[in-house]
Amino acid sequence: MRIETLCTGDELLTGLTADTNSRFFQSLLLERCGLTVRRSTVVGDTRDDLVEVLDALAARCDVVLVSGGLGPTTDDLTIECAAEAAGVGLREDERVMEHIRARFAHRGIALTENNRRQARVPEGSEAVLNAEGSAPLIIQRRGRCTLFFVPGVPREYRHLVGSFVIPRLEAMTAASRVGVTRLKVLKTMGVPESHLDAKVQPLLARHPGVTFGYRTHAPENHLKLLATAPDAAQVEALLQAAERDARAVLGDTVFGADEQTLAGVLGAALLAKGLSLGVAESCTGGLVSAACTEVPGASGWFVGGAATYAPSAKATWAKVAPALMETHGVVSAQVAEALALGVREVLGTSCGLSVTGYAGPAGGDAVNPVGTVFVGVATPAGVTVEQHRFGGDRARVRSFAAATALDALRRSLPRPG
Amino acid sequence: MRIETLCTGDELLTGLTADTNSRFFQSLLLERCGLTVRRSTVVGDTRDDLVEVLDALAARCDVVLVSGGLGPTTDDLTIECAAEAAGVGLREDERVMEHIRARFAHRGIALTENNRRQARVPEGSEAVLNAEGSAPLIIQRRGRCTLFFVPGVPREYRHLVGSFVIPRLEAMTAASRVGVTRLKVLKTMGVPESHLDAKVQPLLARHPGVTFGYRTHAPENHLKLLATAPDAAQVEALLQAAERDARAVLGDTVFGADEQTLAGVLGAALLAKGLSLGVAESCTGGLVSAACTEVPGASGWFVGGAATYAPSAKATWAKVAPALMETHGVVSAQVAEALALGVREVLGTSCGLSVTGYAGPAGGDAVNPVGTVFVGVATPAGVTVEQHRFGGDRARVRSFAAATALDALRRSLPRPG
Repeated sequence: MRIETLCTGDELLTGLTADTNSRFFQSLLLERCGLTVRRSTVVGDTRDDLVEVLDALAARCDVVLVSGGLGPTTDDLTIECAAEAAGVGLREDERVMEHIRARFAHRGIALTENNRRQARVPEGSEAVLNAEGSAPLIIQRRGRCTLFFVPGVPREYRHLVGSFVIPRLEAMTAASRVGVTRLKVLKTMGVPESHLDAKVQPLLARHPGVTFGYRTHAPENHLKLLATAPDAAQVEALLQAAERDARAVLGDTVFGADEQTLAGVLGAALLAKGLSLGVAESCTGGLVSAACTEVPGASGWFVGGAATYAPSAKATWAKVAPALMETHGVVSAQVAEALALGVREVLGTSCGLSVTGYAGPAGGDAVNPVGTVFVGVATPAGVTVEQHRFGGDRARVRSFAAATALDALRRSLPRPG
Repeated sequence: MRIETLCTGDELLTGLTADTNSRFFQSLLLERCGLTVRRSTVVGDTRDDLVEVLDALAARCDVVLVSGGLGPTTDDLTIECAAEAAGVGLREDERVMEHIRARFAHRGIALTENNRRQARVPEGSEAVLNAEGSAPLIIQRRGRCTLFFVPGVPREYRHLVGSFVIPRLEAMTAASRVGVTRLKVLKTMGVPESHLDAKVQPLLARHPGVTFGYRTHAPENHLKLLATAPDAAQVEALLQAAERDARAVLGDTVFGADEQTLAGVLGAALLAKGLSLGVAESCTGGLVSAACTEVPGASGWFVGGAATYAPSAKATWAKVAPALMETHGVVSAQVAEALALGVREVLGTSCGLSVTGYAGPAGGDAVNPVGTVFVGVATPAGVTVEQHRFGGDRARVRSFAAATALDALRRSLPRPG
């Protein structure tokens, strides 16, 4: 079954507005029907383009989801174009008109003549009332193709797609559905995408029922496993076998799966072991703490974090000796270690995590150029310091340094079980 | 000139990833060339689709920007398909290969065989080295159509589009351009979009040569002013007149313009007045400090920030009396004030900024429900506390609270001049 989407609206082509709707439909389609969108097109509010693209889509697709251009104003052309492309006229739907009248009366707003535009339906099409807005969902058949037209307003889009379009597609595909499709995402830190691919390549032949893919979500790299099987148990078995083999080759670079986040996994590990964390970070300036506190319930393991930006803040908040900073420089393994041990002592936590480095654009020297970052990890098992060098601009160095610090602590904790 | 874009990648069709690149190109294209994208297409990593769409685009467009599928892995097919569609072979580009070798050597990472894939260029195409990554920008001519191929990684996309594609398009369109188009963005904090619209509406009739638009960049709202005129002086005059009127109705809710950031504007103001800043933040847990230290040169005014998450951290790092926290609760005006004054005293800065609140999902009570946030501002002029209530989930409350805190300090500083 070939499914495509068409989003309409000048604002989607001029940089004004991002399309936040399509991912909602795509995710539900995959999850509930085991199907993916084959192609997605955006056109402006231009009559010729709309008619041309609607015709092309109706000719090559089984299902098309069209969004946008259903408003009351004269630049909302989608329904006129849908009728024109199909060679039919427009009728005013009395049920839709009554729905619009009732909505306006309820709000005490006067109905204007252009609101009638939203009650127009191409001849031969079905209109489904929209509890979240005026414009209905319109379902048009053209040959073997079914076109669904929904408003682009996110709240209305989600309501109509979730409550009507997806259930209709589930019903349409029930008979032909060959099985259940599931996606599993394994998330890694510290493996370049090319290395991930090289390590995973040998597994492809062993798992012909699984499609392997990659996604860079810097600084993380993700391995995507997609499988389809006659039933949920079989698809789970396929994915579990592939995941087991992938984890075997990727080792502890895999920090989590699916919706898990690096800080969330770290927090859960600390909580499970009854450990608490204090952070002292220089070049990342709050990013490590912000990532930790993004996790709901972080207060169970995160005590505090200091963005010790100036040397005086390192001394005041993490008891780093000024002489140590003068001798070795603030960007040094010695200061990273002192920060991790110092913040742990000051806050009385079981673990201390530190970052110090040159994020750029200024700073650095011949030995430690911009991009050099030291990460200090103090746990009940001892203290270690890692040195890294990250490329790119200030924002990239900072985000890589913050994620690498969280990952260093995660890797240093004893494995569960 | 007909311009279209093609984004490739299964992840853009399965709900995994949102396309955050296209708006960047669209905005620059409008601003610098006065042009808009006519149509935008997304296809998966499917050879047949890619070749078919590339052929169709080359036949109907003057310019095509293709993004994605330039990685080193076997599901990166764009360059192969570009060669196949054009009926040419692939060559390994020695300059690109040398660039890739140097990048890997600099980072001390081993080159794998599949990294060579990124040095492949269709015969007859031009390759431009990519300072932000391995894959080059590839420029392919097919008849009257110029196709630009860039990686989908946002940092690399922005670099290559901003530094090479847009300048090339400016040059290509210089002769046919009817005038100069410029975009001015005024950035506001604390004004809902509908209020912004209501305040700005009366200006529209006074500035017929300027197109007004809005952009929500939560928690900021931006006013966009777009003008076209025969030359740069005239377009500047149009924009300056509209900006002056807009600033008059929006007052000090306008914190900056164009590329300015809230933290950057705040930092420049502190620096100009010789003031320094210390931060103590609870529910935002590092976001305020991270925003400050994102600004290059922040060390000139930002001394340090404490994510005082646990009450013990508030006592240790900002000298908040435990009795005060017990009496008023940690989410209170009293504790916000004590945090701002305490962090200023501990770090010896001229200003102290604090945040304490309930970000959710748990926490809060009948008086101060989830979303309640207190912001404390201590400056040489005195100390003030603001109370806010933000809707939405944990992430939204945190980001609104952090930006509101920075804005509270900005508003409390005496105006320049």
